[in-house]
Amino acid sequence: MAQITIIGMGLIGTSIGLGLKNAKQASIKIVGYDVEHGNARQAHKRLAIDSAEGNLRNAVRSADLVIIATPVSAIREVLQEIGREMPAQCAVTDTGSTKQQVMKWAEEFLPKSVSFIGGHPMAGKETSGPEAGEATLFRDKVWCLFPSRDAADWAVEAVVGIVETIGGKPYFLDPQEHDSFVAAASHLPIALSSALVSATSKSPSWHEIARLASSGYRDVSRLAGGDPTMNRDIYMTNAEEIGGWIDRAITELLELRKALRDKNEAALARYFGAVHEERVKWEAGAVTSPAAAPEVKVPSMGQQLSTVFLGDLLAKKSRTLMESYEERAEGKGKRDGR
Amino acid sequence: MAQITIIGMGLIGTSIGLGLKNAKQASIKIVGYDVEHGNARQAHKRLAIDSAEGNLRNAVRSADLVIIATPVSAIREVLQEIGREMPAQCAVTDTGSTKQQVMKWAEEFLPKSVSFIGGHPMAGKETSGPEAGEATLFRDKVWCLFPSRDAADWAVEAVVGIVETIGGKPYFLDPQEHDSFVAAASHLPIALSSALVSATSKSPSWHEIARLASSGYRDVSRLAGGDPTMNRDIYMTNAEEIGGWIDRAITELLELRKALRDKNEAALARYFGAVHEERVKWEAGAVTSPAAAPEVKVPSMGQQLSTVFLGDLLAKKSRTLMESYEERAEGKGKRDGR
Repeated sequence: MAQITIIGMGLIGTSIGLGLKNAKQASIKIVGYDVEHGNARQAHKRLAIDSAEGNLRNAVRSADLVIIATPVSAIREVLQEIGREMPAQCAVTDTGSTKQQVMKWAEEFLPKSVSFIGGHPMAGKETSGPEAGEATLFRDKVWCLFPSRDAADWAVEAVVGIVETIGGKPYFLDPQEHDSFVAAASHLPIALSSALVSATSKSPSWHEIARLASSGYRDVSRLAGGDPTMNRDIYMTNAEEIGGWIDRAITELLELRKALRDKNEAALARYFGAVHEERVKWEAGAVTSPAAAPEVKVPSMGQQLSTVFLGDLLAKKSRTLMESYEERAEGKGKRDGR
Repeated sequence: MAQITIIGMGLIGTSIGLGLKNAKQASIKIVGYDVEHGNARQAHKRLAIDSAEGNLRNAVRSADLVIIATPVSAIREVLQEIGREMPAQCAVTDTGSTKQQVMKWAEEFLPKSVSFIGGHPMAGKETSGPEAGEATLFRDKVWCLFPSRDAADWAVEAVVGIVETIGGKPYFLDPQEHDSFVAAASHLPIALSSALVSATSKSPSWHEIARLASSGYRDVSRLAGGDPTMNRDIYMTNAEEIGGWIDRAITELLELRKALRDKNEAALARYFGAVHEERVKWEAGAVTSPAAAPEVKVPSMGQQLSTVFLGDLLAKKSRTLMESYEERAEGKGKRDGR
């Protein structure tokens, strides 16, 4: 029986467990670990894992695949700790929100025989902890994947298989690109949301402003209510990219400021007209239409996975299997060369 | 039978009509007008009004109370037009999102015998038009009210009665305060939301960013998708207050920018910790708790309204009734002096 170990039984780790359990992969045993044992116990009670393990090294010792679902700041320490205990040929992935840093840590701390495939599911919720986990959290959500240079094909496939099993859409891209794109798509919104709450709540009239604040304020300020430790970690591990995007946002605000100072009705109309159009297009999915952007890049072999049970794949991750994959792969072209 | 005329059968006007109809005020006739007659017809089909009138002056000629629910930029023209046709003793209110300008227009264009009570319901939706209207749109939402200096008490009461009938919470404050508070609570969020969409959509990588953008981007960018004409009008009529708040938001972003440049982990932790705490407090309603802020100020007579049918009140808005109110009011202290 193959073993998947999930490290970090918060919202993401628990949701992955629930998603896998939901897919009724009977041939897989799922072990959960959390630095706060209560979280692992809670995830176990919710049937997201088959057993809760209280010791990190024990949790990974017999694993075929390890999923690190901790906050990004804890990933370094986890990699360092499990790097000493990993079985050879094991696959490791993570769910951290920034990637250049994580890929460097993996290279530094994991033995060569272990395949690291960085990961980042584009899904989340305001609430956190194992109670917030849900089997459908990743359904139809993009899940970025970053195979390290030496990752074995079976390991990439296995991670793709997990992502697809729980409903996510695998998307391969470069770690540096990823960090710049998520700085724009996820981290800049946190800055703008936080600036709103900080500016308004510092006002001597905050009590009255708060009373008048309605759904618009609620939407824009929502991210400011997110986990401050997670936000700090994201900002520390992706400082440069985020800084660049904050500069661009300030430039935008200065443009609006100027139009207001000049009472320039035409400029305001143009500005709000342009963002309205882009927002509507984005919401409709028209920005990412197949015509406008490249198709989601999935390695050729990932597509064959539906015919193979995830558990079988993990259990049989023998040299033989890998060789047969490599032979097949050669006939179809290389993963990133097509 | 008393007549209420609603001018502007968009989301707000239609929702007011539906809310009043829902309250089964059989003694009131509701007439609707829209510069686009199709909107009034649609509102009539949805039973938000008893009849659709195609001529603005005809719509107000027999009205006891007029509700102007047009975009704020159209209010000036509507006041100018109906000012020539208003029956004496009529009450007029509006739903515009900025107030200093509107109060000046009302003073300029309405005859002295007409009571103007500015209004601003703190409710809205992304979608607009009569199709989007709903009877419960204002339920438990704050509804700001601004009686002009010469507004008759019965007129203030009647407007309070309408607000309460459709579930809103009347809240009296000063027009200048209001404009500053809503600049912070409603208009600054529009700027931040628009800056996000503008900055990201100008990027050469927008197609890829758009693919990774998830619920966080969706929330913060939502307001950028709002009606651009409405946003332009709001910005034109409240330029100074909004400009001040944009400056404060830029200051906040520069503070975050500095913490990023210095890789100052403690500063980032403090920043995200503080906004998290304020956001959670706000969401829980703890910022506006009775201990922290003054109670909603409703004129004493407004509270008696539940014993009087709105229709009766409007139908009997005779001098006699007003005098009896004034006598009762004297015994209880003045509206704004308590």
